Amino acid sequence: MKKFNTSPLSGMQELLPTEQVVFDKLKQQISDVYHHYGFQSIETPLIDRTEILFAKAGGDTEKQIYRVMKTAESADSADQALRFDHTVPLARYVIEHNNDLAFPFSVTQINRNFRGERAQRGRFREFYQCDADIIGRDKLPIAYDAQVIVCIYEALKAFKLPNMQVRISNRKILSGFLSALNLTEQSGTVSEIIDHIEKVPLDITREKLAKLNIDAENIEKIIKFTEINGDYITVAQKLGDILGDTTPIQEGLEELKTVFELLNAQSNLDDVIIDLMIIRGLDYYTGTVFETFITDHRDLGSISSGGRYDNLASNFSNQSYPGVGGSIGLTRLFFVLKECGLLNFDEEKKPIDICLLPLSENEFKFTMQVADQLRKQGKTIDIDFDTRKLGARMNRASKIAEGAIVIGDNEAASGTLELKDLKTGEKTTINL
Amino acid sequence: MKKFNTSPLSGMQELLPTEQVVFDKLKQQISDVYHHYGFQSIETPLIDRTEILFAKAGGDTEKQIYRVMKTAESADSADQALRFDHTVPLARYVIEHNNDLAFPFSVTQINRNFRGERAQRGRFREFYQCDADIIGRDKLPIAYDAQVIVCIYEALKAFKLPNMQVRISNRKILSGFLSALNLTEQSGTVSEIIDHIEKVPLDITREKLAKLNIDAENIEKIIKFTEINGDYITVAQKLGDILGDTTPIQEGLEELKTVFELLNAQSNLDDVIIDLMIIRGLDYYTGTVFETFITDHRDLGSISSGGRYDNLASNFSNQSYPGVGGSIGLTRLFFVLKECGLLNFDEEKKPIDICLLPLSENEFKFTMQVADQLRKQGKTIDIDFDTRKLGARMNRASKIAEGAIVIGDNEAASGTLELKDLKTGEKTTINL
Repeated sequence: MKKFNTSPLSGMQELLPTEQVVFDKLKQQISDVYHHYGFQSIETPLIDRTEILFAKAGGDTEKQIYRVMKTAESADSADQALRFDHTVPLARYVIEHNNDLAFPFSVTQINRNFRGERAQRGRFREFYQCDADIIGRDKLPIAYDAQVIVCIYEALKAFKLPNMQVRISNRKILSGFLSALNLTEQSGTVSEIIDHIEKVPLDITREKLAKLNIDAENIEKIIKFTEINGDYITVAQKLGDILGDTTPIQEGLEELKTVFELLNAQSNLDDVIIDLMIIRGLDYYTGTVFETFITDHRDLGSISSGGRYDNLASNFSNQSYPGVGGSIGLTRLFFVLKECGLLNFDEEKKPIDICLLPLSENEFKFTMQVADQLRKQGKTIDIDFDTRKLGARMNRASKIAEGAIVIGDNEAASGTLELKDLKTGEKTTINL
Repeated sequence: MKKFNTSPLSGMQELLPTEQVVFDKLKQQISDVYHHYGFQSIETPLIDRTEILFAKAGGDTEKQIYRVMKTAESADSADQALRFDHTVPLARYVIEHNNDLAFPFSVTQINRNFRGERAQRGRFREFYQCDADIIGRDKLPIAYDAQVIVCIYEALKAFKLPNMQVRISNRKILSGFLSALNLTEQSGTVSEIIDHIEKVPLDITREKLAKLNIDAENIEKIIKFTEINGDYITVAQKLGDILGDTTPIQEGLEELKTVFELLNAQSNLDDVIIDLMIIRGLDYYTGTVFETFITDHRDLGSISSGGRYDNLASNFSNQSYPGVGGSIGLTRLFFVLKECGLLNFDEEKKPIDICLLPLSENEFKFTMQVADQLRKQGKTIDIDFDTRKLGARMNRASKIAEGAIVIGDNEAASGTLELKDLKTGEKTTINL
């Protein structure tokens, strides 16, 4: 017999049923919160035109795209690929179904995406992302930025983590700030350096900035900028201290103030601060940006993120579709939290409520009827028809179920059943 | 600006939010029923080793497999492909996680599969299948066959179709019957002919059988065989009439009797008959086979199907894993039922319960607090922050929501809100 490698491919998540039930529950809870916040579900195909996907991708992403070809008719299908995020197919979707959608369009996609990243522990090539976006036509009021942040924060509560903190900023403040320092030309590279500032020693950051021909005074201003955080008044005052004249950052400051105040008025978002170190990538975001952290585990990095983009579909249409969105990287987050013991599997219920154990074939019909009744009461019922030794059957039951009922001829005759709790051993009588 | 084709690729399903909500609800209901029947969820990767996928595929399927390659490192990844069904990855999963699973292992996979079929209306290249399987180690009692059939039938009730009928048979009866006619050698081809018997005139079937050098008497016996249906006693008697001696089909008859009787004892399965025309493909199934039909729409073909297979993982292991399973092809079924008006979208609720319309920015904070309260009551709430003309906003609301609440300064001051039903126009007062 040929020997096959039956492990899943590198970078693919494959869970046992007891883990899957926790993963699915988290996914469902996130989805429920998104729906309660008015986000409508859509599903875009996993396979899309390469041309569409490459229109937005670039750099590393482009290298990571999986191409798809049919064995039989490769010529017809070499122009297909697996999507690497939800945003590009969403842009295509909005243009394609434009006339059938009601704008502002609040939309959620919770599904798998694909990136052929270098294989590495905790890096996934096939991963769930839980996205929530609001797309406007021509304009989209700033209040939506707060709405998305509150929704994502609420959804993260599914993980029952210790305290979480939202950190927000606005890209317009950074660009205004750099323009005031006459550094607009270098803004791409400077943004990139700030984005990594937490991960490298400050002297390295100074060196990197100096290499861009930025003078010592401005370098210190930039570093001071990234150290600004707190409530709106503190932040505005500290920015004034550095800049003197805050005119170049006025628009960004006003947006930030609106979002910050709306967030503070929400009773379900306990901890939000402004943090000018939050940048979020390079070109994509144009206004509000946010990240969420576990307060005592800043080391785990942000557990959700997002922001405002001026135009979702700039590659596909002349019409402007401003949007704001956020995302929870579920597969990665699940892995990270599991690794550091922040997901409590023991507290979780087993997948099955009750396992029924008929002692012989004579009880099969009765057992199926019992199962039917218990299912109608909303219970999850497994029947073990394999009438081997009771010990082995109880062992199986305790792996998958909360309780078990043994059904012999007495039980079938009387209709009186004994439910055994498989954790505590406690017994309860059930009369049908 | 470059002109992009923004339609989804041919063979891909892409629904509007109002359709998606119906699709998702059906998927959820099927999943809930499977869980209530004790099936545990797993998710296998969409991308798997080509070697694993090709171990079972053959003929048309092999031609339809999508190969996956990374742009950057094609050498490393040319051996990957998209799965074409749930069964092959399940076989790999069972072998790989063998020691961590409790057998009999009841498992459900509800997810997308991929086949590069010829483009054709109603044929999908990316499609959801809702599978429920029970896998034993070494043996699996026949009662599980009944269990799977009842579960799939119950799940199909989600579609609220007119009467449904389950038709069952057992492959051992057909093989015993053909062996009694000394036609074991031709059994593959004869099975294939019977599988298509409903779709071609009877004379063509006779011609096809004659080409296999089957004599006229046996041809008539085969045709009579396929016309046998009814309850167990009728079927056994008619088979006796044709065969005289029923010894060669005894094992199949006994299994069929057990399954039929267990099904008849189930109060939630109204209509089940034995129908020897039910064959289900060629080699895969080895015992019980079943299909479900809409009683008044036999023309739509079977809406679910499945059966017993002797060995799930014969390609990957010397250990025997007998299984029985069934599947609902959700994407295709959704399309077919929509086409012939059997899905009632009008009855469906809109995705949003209440749309909140603040009249100006002054009411934004209050509106977000109202939304928070209503969400805590389990309502799905959208806020339209785009303070344009009220007519346009009401128009948007009526597309996506069941009701709307306009919030001006009076409402913010008094906390008394008026909920307008967007279908009936009826107004209700809400006090917060």
